[in-house]
Amino acid sequence: MSTKNTFKPNWINEPPKKGSFRSIFKFGNPKGFKHPNDNLYQEIKSKFNLTDADFIEKTTTGNEPVEIKKESGLETHQIDKFIHISGKENVSPKEYERLKFSTGKTVEEALKLRAGKVDKISDLVVHPRNKSEISAIIKYCNQQKIPIYAYGGGSSVNFGYYPEKGGISLVLSTHLNKVVEFNEINQTATVEAGMMGPAFEHVLNNAPKLYGANHAFTCGHFPQSFEYSTVGGWFVTLGSGQQSSYYGDAADLVLGVEIITPVGEIITKDYPATSTGPKVLDIIKGSEGTLGIVVELTWKIFRHKPKNRQYFSFIFPNWEAAVHASREISQSEFGMPAVFRISDAEETHHGLKLYGIEDTIIDKLMKFRGFKPMERCLFLGTADGDKRFARNIKSSVKKICKKYGAMNLTSYPVRKWEPGRYKDPYLREDLMDYGIIMDTLETSVKWDNLHKVHKMCRDYVKSRPATICMTHASHFYEQGTNLYFIFIIKENDMQAYLDFHKGLIDQIEKSGGSLSHHHGVGRMIAQWMPQHLGENQMNVIRALKKHFDPNNIMNPGSQLGLEEPC
Amino acid sequence: MSTKNTFKPNWINEPPKKGSFRSIFKFGNPKGFKHPNDNLYQEIKSKFNLTDADFIEKTTTGNEPVEIKKESGLETHQIDKFIHISGKENVSPKEYERLKFSTGKTVEEALKLRAGKVDKISDLVVHPRNKSEISAIIKYCNQQKIPIYAYGGGSSVNFGYYPEKGGISLVLSTHLNKVVEFNEINQTATVEAGMMGPAFEHVLNNAPKLYGANHAFTCGHFPQSFEYSTVGGWFVTLGSGQQSSYYGDAADLVLGVEIITPVGEIITKDYPATSTGPKVLDIIKGSEGTLGIVVELTWKIFRHKPKNRQYFSFIFPNWEAAVHASREISQSEFGMPAVFRISDAEETHHGLKLYGIEDTIIDKLMKFRGFKPMERCLFLGTADGDKRFARNIKSSVKKICKKYGAMNLTSYPVRKWEPGRYKDPYLREDLMDYGIIMDTLETSVKWDNLHKVHKMCRDYVKSRPATICMTHASHFYEQGTNLYFIFIIKENDMQAYLDFHKGLIDQIEKSGGSLSHHHGVGRMIAQWMPQHLGENQMNVIRALKKHFDPNNIMNPGSQLGLEEPC
Repeated sequence: MSTKNTFKPNWINEPPKKGSFRSIFKFGNPKGFKHPNDNLYQEIKSKFNLTDADFIEKTTTGNEPVEIKKESGLETHQIDKFIHISGKENVSPKEYERLKFSTGKTVEEALKLRAGKVDKISDLVVHPRNKSEISAIIKYCNQQKIPIYAYGGGSSVNFGYYPEKGGISLVLSTHLNKVVEFNEINQTATVEAGMMGPAFEHVLNNAPKLYGANHAFTCGHFPQSFEYSTVGGWFVTLGSGQQSSYYGDAADLVLGVEIITPVGEIITKDYPATSTGPKVLDIIKGSEGTLGIVVELTWKIFRHKPKNRQYFSFIFPNWEAAVHASREISQSEFGMPAVFRISDAEETHHGLKLYGIEDTIIDKLMKFRGFKPMERCLFLGTADGDKRFARNIKSSVKKICKKYGAMNLTSYPVRKWEPGRYKDPYLREDLMDYGIIMDTLETSVKWDNLHKVHKMCRDYVKSRPATICMTHASHFYEQGTNLYFIFIIKENDMQAYLDFHKGLIDQIEKSGGSLSHHHGVGRMIAQWMPQHLGENQMNVIRALKKHFDPNNIMNPGSQLGLEEPC
Repeated sequence: MSTKNTFKPNWINEPPKKGSFRSIFKFGNPKGFKHPNDNLYQEIKSKFNLTDADFIEKTTTGNEPVEIKKESGLETHQIDKFIHISGKENVSPKEYERLKFSTGKTVEEALKLRAGKVDKISDLVVHPRNKSEISAIIKYCNQQKIPIYAYGGGSSVNFGYYPEKGGISLVLSTHLNKVVEFNEINQTATVEAGMMGPAFEHVLNNAPKLYGANHAFTCGHFPQSFEYSTVGGWFVTLGSGQQSSYYGDAADLVLGVEIITPVGEIITKDYPATSTGPKVLDIIKGSEGTLGIVVELTWKIFRHKPKNRQYFSFIFPNWEAAVHASREISQSEFGMPAVFRISDAEETHHGLKLYGIEDTIIDKLMKFRGFKPMERCLFLGTADGDKRFARNIKSSVKKICKKYGAMNLTSYPVRKWEPGRYKDPYLREDLMDYGIIMDTLETSVKWDNLHKVHKMCRDYVKSRPATICMTHASHFYEQGTNLYFIFIIKENDMQAYLDFHKGLIDQIEKSGGSLSHHHGVGRMIAQWMPQHLGENQMNVIRALKKHFDPNNIMNPGSQLGLEEPC
């Protein structure tokens, strides 16, 4: 230990400068940071053949001020109309604002903004105060053929509201952020689409105080972007949370919606089930702003019983064993764990570093028992629900893991993982400051295709010299799961990064994975859609688009693969 | 007991005469019967003020031969084309066949056929041998503008394939009735749409022998029509089985489908979840043959562990208590019972007679403990899945039922109910032979609206002098349940019955219930659809219809409310 290098890169620990590019592309809380710990830093240096010297000078920071000039494409009388509808204080023609609400959280956008490059931005930012303003805005935009790009929490990783055709950025989170109706009898909460995760969860957790409810409640949906995404966004992009194996994916959690479209408003029925033909509610799932604006959602809520939560972690000798056990757990019908994730060997290797388990007594015991680094695979889990139900899951999981050769790591690793689970994206900025790119792509698989998809994608990433490729599965179903790939490369050339990224999407598609399990389509994977779904299915989506939005004003362009990419 | 009347009506116990109307409208197995037991018979006499004398002569039997003459609307060259596609033995222009495959199981159809009245029948019956024949048939019909009405098991209770506009009856169950792929790893079975419930379940139960599987499996879907309905029918009508509270509704159980439509074929992706835009799979749910013909389905299967099944029954002091307990069970997150049904006071009254519990020691004990007839409410349940999981459900249910004042009736009543659960529809023929109509309507409700819907519908039925009105809830969700109304009336006038029936649908709609929980729409409730869903939602379904079926050949007419009723 005494020989250990004591150099530490000067990771940025200050909020981005006001008005800077960094203030736009930085993930999450401006004051939020998660710097690579020393283990990870050493690993990265060794992987990319770097020395401390490479971490003295930053490549880019993006802390330069946004000083672009872009004329708005809207005419003055049009801007006046939006001011008339939503008030002067809720309309902004300023370039900084227009860039901010046109930008998501892709690596590509961060790379460009770090270089001071700005592509298209919207012509105007509008923050509607309520749903009748949204109705008026859609009506007006439909008349004037002004495109509308809805912005929720801004966490899109696929250019989900990139203003390809100009028009307005419609920001839903500024004002449409309240619970409209709390119904304990039905266990539902009707919520405005722009409400952010923590605010929603706070209301539900405090239902006894706020509504005199008999129970506290939870929304059950905790994506990594939880703190910076909206309830409406979760639904229209088909999101999935870290406890989805138990609670279900976002779309499963919505009973009914109110949507405003160019051809009128629809409030879907919110029966728990009904057999009255194809459901408009289902059609809106995954529509990603192309059919209309979802303004309210009736969400299924669950009793909040944190004291019932069970924690468990295991280490498996290898990936095959971890997958076997996971399938057995998923198909055994004793109820599903809430958090349920298995990491492949390389992710386990880095995860043990990140969660501070490397070199602990647990690590030593693992090694002693023959669980080898770069072979062993970590399993993290929790169980929610009724106490005896949750305990039975834990003991059933334990039995299955043992059967497949796992060692019980106690609850320690998952408890170490839990508090930091929304923080990993913060690592990205630190690395990119030194020209290192960390990015993710994800897919869904059936059990019988999991290994093929995993191998083909990993082989592809690893075929590039010096890459880190970590994979986990974290959303389980009886019939399969997802695969989430995190890769880290050293790359300064934008096009080289883009080509590499594109190649991985190709591999996902070729190996038989879905184009996305829960990130949605946006514009990033749009060009793969026709070959993935087939022209006949694309034509169905196009027919819906034409019906709902005959003037093509709702998130127009290549979104979802509806038009050729620009 | 010695004073008890020993007269028994001469219930028909013979299969319908060959070629008779009765052979068409009789439910289920021609040799299957469930006659009213003495308790029920006495009750009916007293309710309708009848004597044994009224049960000597039958009002109608429908055992007369079908001797109608209806020219086929198709031209000879068209019929030849179908013969060319599917073979002579699979095409029939005979009136009896055309009537048979145009007829469902509504009371209205039975009443008409008993009177020898025949409305529209299709022009030709075709039994395609495989999906490529279906593809050829749809292509040809689309060219020639010949309507296609798909017939699965024939159990529709809403005129779901009534050939309003002539054309062909396409019978799917004759040849498309096999499991195409059994996949134990993914726990799926890909099955042809025309496979009947028992055949499908038989294959799954025998997977170890048939496929060398490690486990036996079950399909998890057991509607009352199980023995006489098809897998494809379950899906396209949004059916629900008697164990749906645990396994899910039919549409939840399908991962992917292959559908042939006038604008081409679609095979949807069968990932367990994916975020690639609105899903065509979802759109086909509930499409009831109006968009195309589903030819194959990939069905989620479950491990078959009958030995794990737990049985339990309770009696509650009243309906309110039974509903309270059911809600608590549904929202407590210890897992859902599989069979889960509560009967209101009147259904309990008759149910205890039907299941042979009246006057047993259990009945005496109930009365002694103060559970009064026409107030007390029966709860029947089972739990499936992993053994400890199922046991925990049983003990948790027990605790909640006790809390709401219920008495434990042991497993006896549910075990008495189980073997006869597909048999109740057989009662209908016996009663109708003497001019007594037994019919059902059903709806879904949210918890906070359950009592209003129940009361308004019951009040309506009971406002007609001398009616029996039994209600149960048997499909439970965290957010609500269904209500299933069974009414029995003495009525010889067809129009009076139809008006009464229509009035009950009105009440369901007015009280805020859905138009249907799992019977589907068909043509019977089509006229309520626009006001129920609103024109904007209807227009979405119409836009889909127009896209998939531009020449309006798929189940054309008022189905789903797409066109004005004829």
